[in-house]
Amino acid sequence: MREVNVGIVGLGNVGSGTLAILAGNADQIALKLGFRLKVTAVCCRSVAHKPIPESLGPVFRTADWREVVAHPDVDIVAELVGGTTVAAEIVEAAIANRKSVVTANKELMAACGPEIWDRAIHAGINVAMEASVAGGIPIHAVLREGISGDRITALYGILNGTCNYILTEIEKRDAPLETVLAEAQQLGYAEADPSADLDGIDARSKLAILAALAFGEKITPSDIFMEGIRRISPLDFRYAHQLGHTIRLICAARQTPEGLILSVRPALIPRSTILAGVQGAYNAVWVKGAYGEDTFYYGRGAGALPTGVAVVSDLMRVAREIRSGSPERVSPFAHERLGKYRPVSVVLQTRGYYLRFRVKDRPGILAGLSGILAAKNISLEAVLQLPTGTKRDLPFVITVEPTYEHAIREAVAQMAQLDFLLEPPLALPMETAL
Amino acid sequence: MREVNVGIVGLGNVGSGTLAILAGNADQIALKLGFRLKVTAVCCRSVAHKPIPESLGPVFRTADWREVVAHPDVDIVAELVGGTTVAAEIVEAAIANRKSVVTANKELMAACGPEIWDRAIHAGINVAMEASVAGGIPIHAVLREGISGDRITALYGILNGTCNYILTEIEKRDAPLETVLAEAQQLGYAEADPSADLDGIDARSKLAILAALAFGEKITPSDIFMEGIRRISPLDFRYAHQLGHTIRLICAARQTPEGLILSVRPALIPRSTILAGVQGAYNAVWVKGAYGEDTFYYGRGAGALPTGVAVVSDLMRVAREIRSGSPERVSPFAHERLGKYRPVSVVLQTRGYYLRFRVKDRPGILAGLSGILAAKNISLEAVLQLPTGTKRDLPFVITVEPTYEHAIREAVAQMAQLDFLLEPPLALPMETAL
Repeated sequence: MREVNVGIVGLGNVGSGTLAILAGNADQIALKLGFRLKVTAVCCRSVAHKPIPESLGPVFRTADWREVVAHPDVDIVAELVGGTTVAAEIVEAAIANRKSVVTANKELMAACGPEIWDRAIHAGINVAMEASVAGGIPIHAVLREGISGDRITALYGILNGTCNYILTEIEKRDAPLETVLAEAQQLGYAEADPSADLDGIDARSKLAILAALAFGEKITPSDIFMEGIRRISPLDFRYAHQLGHTIRLICAARQTPEGLILSVRPALIPRSTILAGVQGAYNAVWVKGAYGEDTFYYGRGAGALPTGVAVVSDLMRVAREIRSGSPERVSPFAHERLGKYRPVSVVLQTRGYYLRFRVKDRPGILAGLSGILAAKNISLEAVLQLPTGTKRDLPFVITVEPTYEHAIREAVAQMAQLDFLLEPPLALPMETAL
Repeated sequence: MREVNVGIVGLGNVGSGTLAILAGNADQIALKLGFRLKVTAVCCRSVAHKPIPESLGPVFRTADWREVVAHPDVDIVAELVGGTTVAAEIVEAAIANRKSVVTANKELMAACGPEIWDRAIHAGINVAMEASVAGGIPIHAVLREGISGDRITALYGILNGTCNYILTEIEKRDAPLETVLAEAQQLGYAEADPSADLDGIDARSKLAILAALAFGEKITPSDIFMEGIRRISPLDFRYAHQLGHTIRLICAARQTPEGLILSVRPALIPRSTILAGVQGAYNAVWVKGAYGEDTFYYGRGAGALPTGVAVVSDLMRVAREIRSGSPERVSPFAHERLGKYRPVSVVLQTRGYYLRFRVKDRPGILAGLSGILAAKNISLEAVLQLPTGTKRDLPFVITVEPTYEHAIREAVAQMAQLDFLLEPPLALPMETAL
């Protein structure tokens, strides 16, 4: 059977990994497909200096992506450029040229996924985006096909490997975030500007895509409550352990009677859960279904080769569909908002919270804080004070019984005015439903 | 768009679960597909007494499966009968009638999967079998699509929920296997004749299917070394814990320089691994890839609804392909043996072993046992004796440094002749590569 031809735009980390797999695993890929997947054209700005595996045979090289998209032999365009400017143009041009698209671009798919899919269906081509979320975990295949018959009620994810690496290093070594971040930057695990990771922006794009697939809703990143990990200190892990918990940046999407609640924020989770065992740069997704109950998926969150596997697996699927001549496409995105949304802050769901304070010690502190909590109808559960700190900088923790997010926020805002606090209280939800 | 019509043969546990989901989740299924999945016909021996959800509308009911397979409206036949006799006839007749097949039948697919697929491709219809292995875990979708671009080097699974339930109950409660088994039978977790579960037969069929998909090899259950869990006692867990390990029935398929090693057997695994955290009737699969590295999948191993999700998800996929008119099929099974096999016993790979003895105490026991080990060139690692047992029935454990399976077997066979042993030694491999 005739081969299917691939054009690759972008030979950075993911592009190079993709090429390495297409070359190194070519025989097994052909065996699984029944035909060969041929790299016909590649594009990157410095294409002359990029090593192309020899076993791929002659490959058309260019620095102009238009030449790949317009190449008459190319059946599938792999957009591995990233970002939302040029990448959007590439995808648009590929669809206009009736070429199927495989992309690793979370930002683009989170922002414009439904529109891109509409155009793709109209053009009769396919779009695949497994690599856009949790590189090594085939969570798209799982949601799109594997458990598509289930009605998903909740999805929890650890979707940012950089944050998870930083948090688990703080935990293991009792080292401050700044130290661990600097090391991660030196090792190449974190960007020079770490905002997209640390502030939760990257994880939020990923959650927007996964929640859209899981719940069949039109979801954009701005629907999602977001809080980063910058304020998490080694001390917080010591207190969390004391409470039998650990801290992770949790992406959560929950179907509740009040609507779909979406959030990316650091949370305390019980150490006994499988999710708490996810260490370093790994990613994981926990799915709860109305029928299939709990399932859990774990793997590398990023990296040239794990993400390359996602790209190549998508290329194989799209190639198989091209060969089978199947013209009809079904968008994994919903075209309208079917559910009702409420931002997490006003939601009528309650849970416990962890409040960590740093104070200048003097009499009346606990009275001041507990007075504010009592006025908001929030019940104290425990007060913890590990033997650390000084009179001038004394940390301690209050945990409270299940209460409303808005009540906690109001209480925290009032507390922040108290003159004995060295910084505003840190409030983290305790995710016991996991 | 016109609906796709499903005929369901078999309304036992899985069949009822499937019907419940098709009825209860009909709207979301239609939303995801863009058309309705209609239950047109059902068949079971006592069909008159089976409750059919009213929301399904009029459904043709029969006690004769031939009427479902031959029904002019039926597009897909769901074979949920089990076994390899009638089920094989149903599948064959469906293919002959050019109807696609969805099956939950591990025995049939492990024994005849490649042949069934050959006929299906010839007839231009589809076969789907997600429900045949690890009910709630979409491991077929993962292997077939999600990580199809990877080259899998090893696959470890906990694939029999009954054994895992029994082992984790023995572990938690320090209760003997007989007690836990009797309870499991009363609760309906274990069959009246528990052989298929306890002896590893069920797990072996599942591993045959998964290994075939993962490695692209033609594998039959008889290729797989098999040992059941009947000899595992509470004592073994106490010793395993002492060694920082636990015991699980591990299905393993490993690519080695000597060939593909396949085994189903109880093994010691480190308690720190995620696999060790799999409790009760849950299943899990750990996959190692040359490119994507480690991925892990976890969920319910059985149950009407979790397995029903697998059946319904398969129905949706097949229905989507029917609607898209894609005629070409690719078998997930290889048609020939490409690799080389060696039974696990002669394999040139080494690992540590746990040897547990029960002896009538007298001088010279350790000398006798260690003499046999020394003669086989096996190095002792540790001797453990917990403060239990009596002079007349004294259990203790020897662990040995990495050695060959055949050496251990020869040593164990010789030891079994020693007059102070109350039963043959129990030898379990220590899976530290996990």
